[in-house]
Amino acid sequence: MLTRIDHVGIACRNLEVSIAFYQATFGLTVVSRETSTEQGVKEAMLVVADAPAGRSYVQLLEPLGPDTPVGRFLQRRGEGVHHIGYGVADIEAATAAISAAGVRLLDSRPRHGSMGASISFLHPGDVGGVLTELVESAAG
Amino acid sequence: MLTRIDHVGIACRNLEVSIAFYQATFGLTVVSRETSTEQGVKEAMLVVADAPAGRSYVQLLEPLGPDTPVGRFLQRRGEGVHHIGYGVADIEAATAAISAAGVRLLDSRPRHGSMGASISFLHPGDVGGVLTELVESAAG
Repeated sequence: MLTRIDHVGIACRNLEVSIAFYQATFGLTVVSRETSTEQGVKEAMLVVADAPAGRSYVQLLEPLGPDTPVGRFLQRRGEGVHHIGYGVADIEAATAAISAAGVRLLDSRPRHGSMGASISFLHPGDVGGVLTELVESAAG
Repeated sequence: MLTRIDHVGIACRNLEVSIAFYQATFGLTVVSRETSTEQGVKEAMLVVADAPAGRSYVQLLEPLGPDTPVGRFLQRRGEGVHHIGYGVADIEAATAAISAAGVRLLDSRPRHGSMGASISFLHPGDVGGVLTELVESAAG
């Protein structure tokens, strides 16, 4: 069902500072920047690697304010890994199978994610404390 | 420098329960089980995907006792993502470059990791709260 580790979503206080760190320390390259008022974040996608099943990224997330999901995460836990995103070939089929296995979905149906992807979040309480995202990338 | 997201390291209370969950829900397959008294964990590696630069895994970690790094993590944070491992081609060159960039290494020199890999951990306080591991796999 899973085709790759699509991305590691990392909560940070200052997006520009974190981007500069990942560029300088690990040589990663920013390929996308987006702001989502719906999700309350501004974010950047930095490529780790290309692979036949799709790219893998570090996703850096800065909250637009304290009363947002990532803002509350920072207050509670500080900077660090916020979620893990796995690639799937078919988001509708994957979420149907996972829901049937008894895992709650945070989204009643897939919604728009970074770079045109269709995404769906799984309840961390049903996935061993890991906020887990499934990603069907726009390229298919 | 980074060749792939090698693995997501996930702390769990019961390795067998977590393995069964990842197998049943996401269809992952266990390819290695190890116990490290040095690191105070028993662990399993489950394959997410194959790629030219190497496989990607979910690594499930159960502490051997409360007074171990993963045991203390569970007490403080509960189950969830413990660290992120990135692949590198040359662990000596990578850690030298990262150390020169001002990031503290938790290991003075690379040590043995899962499945014969050479690994080195970076100080999370210097990597935006993310416990970060570099992995040169045994296969090269």
